[in-house]
Amino acid sequence: MKKILATLIVLSLALGAFAQELRNFSRQAIVSPQVEGDSVSFRLSADYATIVNLYGSWLPNYSERIPMKKDNGVWTAKIALPSPEIYTYNFFVDGVAVNDPANVFVQRDGSRYLNMLIVDGERTANYKEANEHGTVQTIWYDSALLGMKRRMCVYTPYGYENNPKKKYPVLYLLHGGGGDEEAWPSMGRAAQILDNLIEKGQAVPMIVVMPNGNPGQSAAQTLGIAQSTVNYRDPANANAYVKSLVTEIVPFIEKNFRAIPKSSSRAISGLSMGGGHTTAATTLYPGVFDYICPLSCGIRESDHLDADLQGIKKAGYKLYWIGCGSGDTLAYKNTQVLDEALTRNGMPHTTFISEGGHTWANWRLYLNTFGPLLFK
Amino acid sequence: MKKILATLIVLSLALGAFAQELRNFSRQAIVSPQVEGDSVSFRLSADYATIVNLYGSWLPNYSERIPMKKDNGVWTAKIALPSPEIYTYNFFVDGVAVNDPANVFVQRDGSRYLNMLIVDGERTANYKEANEHGTVQTIWYDSALLGMKRRMCVYTPYGYENNPKKKYPVLYLLHGGGGDEEAWPSMGRAAQILDNLIEKGQAVPMIVVMPNGNPGQSAAQTLGIAQSTVNYRDPANANAYVKSLVTEIVPFIEKNFRAIPKSSSRAISGLSMGGGHTTAATTLYPGVFDYICPLSCGIRESDHLDADLQGIKKAGYKLYWIGCGSGDTLAYKNTQVLDEALTRNGMPHTTFISEGGHTWANWRLYLNTFGPLLFK
Repeated sequence: MKKILATLIVLSLALGAFAQELRNFSRQAIVSPQVEGDSVSFRLSADYATIVNLYGSWLPNYSERIPMKKDNGVWTAKIALPSPEIYTYNFFVDGVAVNDPANVFVQRDGSRYLNMLIVDGERTANYKEANEHGTVQTIWYDSALLGMKRRMCVYTPYGYENNPKKKYPVLYLLHGGGGDEEAWPSMGRAAQILDNLIEKGQAVPMIVVMPNGNPGQSAAQTLGIAQSTVNYRDPANANAYVKSLVTEIVPFIEKNFRAIPKSSSRAISGLSMGGGHTTAATTLYPGVFDYICPLSCGIRESDHLDADLQGIKKAGYKLYWIGCGSGDTLAYKNTQVLDEALTRNGMPHTTFISEGGHTWANWRLYLNTFGPLLFK
Repeated sequence: MKKILATLIVLSLALGAFAQELRNFSRQAIVSPQVEGDSVSFRLSADYATIVNLYGSWLPNYSERIPMKKDNGVWTAKIALPSPEIYTYNFFVDGVAVNDPANVFVQRDGSRYLNMLIVDGERTANYKEANEHGTVQTIWYDSALLGMKRRMCVYTPYGYENNPKKKYPVLYLLHGGGGDEEAWPSMGRAAQILDNLIEKGQAVPMIVVMPNGNPGQSAAQTLGIAQSTVNYRDPANANAYVKSLVTEIVPFIEKNFRAIPKSSSRAISGLSMGGGHTTAATTLYPGVFDYICPLSCGIRESDHLDADLQGIKKAGYKLYWIGCGSGDTLAYKNTQVLDEALTRNGMPHTTFISEGGHTWANWRLYLNTFGPLLFK
């Protein structure tokens, strides 16, 4: 049976009562979104607006809009409940993107702020809070290579503080273009996924390091730090970041956290641009990471591709796991290139093809799928 | 000379180039806000809107609106640059609150999301990133008293990781009604203020603990945790939280962090509701905190007020520091009550009256002002 619970609504009502700042105590009378059975209604009070539309990430194209209807000053769209997932949505009021003021759950996607709709089910079970929680730190390291202090997010599993002699393996988890060190902890639900996998005994307790992959940026959302003029889309600069990742971030983590400093206890994964960082790091530094999981990226054909892969093969590895959506027009072709090149070079690997495209729905699913395969 | 730098604009342009998620690579052509000399312009593209207004926290009343004018589909308001501070603002498009899509800097204020405008100057110097940064953790503790796992934010100063034998004093820093554990780290700029004060040698390195003061809430912005039905505005429940703070959170911190477990190394401060928690905690548990700093709160006259204060006097304390805005209609009167009661009971204290009201502008100023007085 499809288990669909109106969690968000319950939370919205609960939070409506207290998640308000001082001058904001007046309650929103509007309930939005509201899940009822197999439908969900979105509502916005906008008496003076001429046209109000809805966009949601369950729609196949970002240009699609669901028209909303006005009744007594409140615009409503009632749609069939999409399948279980965490979606994002926003309204368009007379052409302007507007967040849902009745819904406190918002995610920053690069420079855009979008409301969240969670539809509960088996697919989303590990995206919600587990019973026991790891700790997430925002910690700074000094990059001599990139010439600045830079911030990363580090997840330590439940029990880390209470087991001062235990050492842990480490997953380096990289974001995509336009993202930053906050992408995996927020949109990627990385802490929740690991908390749940570990609590269920499906994944081994591990540290997860989520650095900032833009070599020109100290950190997301800072005030008053001079930003570098480095063009991080230049492949040469991508390698500067990869160099910093392997020769600065890995040693920093192994000095400041109780990490096991061995290739068999290091995994690397990343989506899109971060998938490029993953293949670059493992090619430039074979033998550092035994678990290699590029997502929604693949690799380009090149003269040196086979030699690169032979370098990894020679150094040895334990898992090469590739994820991509069948509808990912950006990455599906290069994923096939990587899959075929690994086969051609006699390198065992897993290629996991899911539905859909270049989306956080897929990246959450991939972490939840390969997480249990690490360090075993 | 008034030093006014258009920091936000520089950052907006820099971030415009990279702080965008994958399908969001197209640049906003609009620049907003734009500081030029002594003015700042706000702009919104909204060709189909009928009326667009601006609200900003430099205005004395939340009901005030600055009308915007349309030219070629873009609405603009150009105003005199307000004095240095971090302000929040948003647009109203045909009556609906709208964030500025050209400005990636957004703060959550309870359930509302507001854009930030920073006007640089002496007043805001410590609100921006210092050269060296402490670490901020989100960590969970198990509250037997409140019957759930609960999250807090903990700041450890720069150098904490590299000085494994050094122990630190601790400031417990409490939010107000409608806030949560993320209020001080975001709107309060607590990490930046402490980083700057410590780097300049004005404050001693300290740990700052920012718990969630709503006894019915596990944590802000969680998905899938059952929320308690406790009414946290009931004073009896406020004491349940205060009890958890002193008998659960303080021991948790002193077990899991390198904290000095002495009253002379414990400070407590909070704003508004958190000021009430501060006076309640020091009254119910005299001798636990030697540094006591209630902000924008004061105290009510009562039969037992003098006896309560005598309890604190008898146990001993090193600093009693009260902050309030002269225009704070919620708290100014009770601040006078507290000031007079301390005088009447022969208890040395400092009462710091600033301009303005019940605002984060004041709470940041207070932390920046009493921070250097702690643990000396």
